[in-house]
Amino acid sequence: MNPEKFRVGLIQMECGDRPEANLDKAVEKIREAARRGAQIVCLQELFRSQYFCRKEDAKLFDLAETIPGPSTGRLCHVAKELNVVIVASLFEKRATGLYHNTAAIIDADGTLLGIYRKMHIPDDPLYYEKFYFTPGDLGFRAFDTRYGRIATLVCWDQWYPEAARLAALQGANILFYPTAIGWHPAEKEQYGAAQHDAWRTMQRAHAIANGIYVAAVNRVGFEGPKDEGLEFWGASFVSDPFGRLLAEASHDKEEILIVECDPQQMEEVRRNWPFLRDRRIDAYGPITSRFLA
Amino acid sequence: MNPEKFRVGLIQMECGDRPEANLDKAVEKIREAARRGAQIVCLQELFRSQYFCRKEDAKLFDLAETIPGPSTGRLCHVAKELNVVIVASLFEKRATGLYHNTAAIIDADGTLLGIYRKMHIPDDPLYYEKFYFTPGDLGFRAFDTRYGRIATLVCWDQWYPEAARLAALQGANILFYPTAIGWHPAEKEQYGAAQHDAWRTMQRAHAIANGIYVAAVNRVGFEGPKDEGLEFWGASFVSDPFGRLLAEASHDKEEILIVECDPQQMEEVRRNWPFLRDRRIDAYGPITSRFLA
Repeated sequence: MNPEKFRVGLIQMECGDRPEANLDKAVEKIREAARRGAQIVCLQELFRSQYFCRKEDAKLFDLAETIPGPSTGRLCHVAKELNVVIVASLFEKRATGLYHNTAAIIDADGTLLGIYRKMHIPDDPLYYEKFYFTPGDLGFRAFDTRYGRIATLVCWDQWYPEAARLAALQGANILFYPTAIGWHPAEKEQYGAAQHDAWRTMQRAHAIANGIYVAAVNRVGFEGPKDEGLEFWGASFVSDPFGRLLAEASHDKEEILIVECDPQQMEEVRRNWPFLRDRRIDAYGPITSRFLA
Repeated sequence: MNPEKFRVGLIQMECGDRPEANLDKAVEKIREAARRGAQIVCLQELFRSQYFCRKEDAKLFDLAETIPGPSTGRLCHVAKELNVVIVASLFEKRATGLYHNTAAIIDADGTLLGIYRKMHIPDDPLYYEKFYFTPGDLGFRAFDTRYGRIATLVCWDQWYPEAARLAALQGANILFYPTAIGWHPAEKEQYGAAQHDAWRTMQRAHAIANGIYVAAVNRVGFEGPKDEGLEFWGASFVSDPFGRLLAEASHDKEEILIVECDPQQMEEVRRNWPFLRDRRIDAYGPITSRFLA
């Protein structure tokens, strides 16, 4: 009932042009996180490449790979060597013409435990994801790893309380959000602070509503042409089940956050603010409607 | 499609022992809010009395009244006189032995538009609401008032993203949360700041997730014995659809907040962060489960 404490490692990094170099860098950082005590390491969304969804270009489907495939093969090896769980966000080629934005969950013995396919797919200027990714068809999932039960959601999912709830109800101790979110240069001055604050607020609220740890792992660095690129805002963080920030990275540097999480804290929070007790499951049915007016 | 701007008035007050005096005070403050330009006035939870749920005492059912009843009669009169919409949280006697925590929505022409019965009922030390209130059986509702479509939820509802979503999907422009939340004297020093911040964060997140205005109206003042009473933390606020605080009251004084809300702002926010577009209504069905593990 009260699983042990676990230490998460969040890897916030810049990505260059060459996928192999990005994968090499990620592996180096996983090693560093493990040395510093991380047991569950989460990489940022689509860490193997720059954020290619800035434009719609059919050639970029070449970046995709199967799961299992080359990246999971390498990461499974690393996971086993280091005894760490790895959450790896990948561009999945499922079949010819069928691609997903997928998180692979690799256990500390090197086995591929399973995958989560991003359910909510955004599409707005410079984030043309609907061109690339078919919405996930596996639903919301949790996975039993060596260091406890975890769930992963991906980026745009973070704006949907339904997703956090459905993952939390599966008994996870922590929700991981590999992310690629940044500022448009033209918007940053006017909206940048509010955008970042809304992003963080929303995810802290998932922690509070569900009495669960939340970890968001975002990339940093500027990608693309000067006026039409994205400045990824980093600021990876871990929230405790009360919505308090336990650690938060900068907006502009590569960082590895190592944070200890204690399921006993969930026990405390959920006993004192017992939201799960009072959910009106008899009245939530209409949530499967598009609109109700 | 783009309704007009509207001005809300939030009345944060202390309550004394005598219900008639509290009602008189509330009416005076509604007059003041109307003078200052408020069009939709929201009173705090159970404004007609002290927060009696601090103990379980069957005699206290005497505080309840029917709806329509004396309080709505008086408030309908005031609403018509001042041309304001009033959201009034009342202790409803529905039948002998059947009580609810109910919000009455009174239109600016003095008609009782409808009621919302609090759906999520808390029960923890000094908040013994399950003794008094039968959980609501009317679901989540929105109401067309003279100044636009509004929804009301009540206090403990504010911790449930499902409630905010279901109210927002009914096309409301604003969610009102009449509230009675405070600090236990023994907990305030250690947890007080985090509790207040979690409360505000959660409701700002409802604004963000749904692209909607949110107004929380809380009481102030200390009620009950020195060591076993509650210090209601006030801090009533209005959040815009991006989660930004437009106004926020103090922790310890009676205040009336007058805030202009612009549905055009919802238009902007929902166009640029179109969360409603991408909801996975095909996958949310299990949210009607108690637990999924």
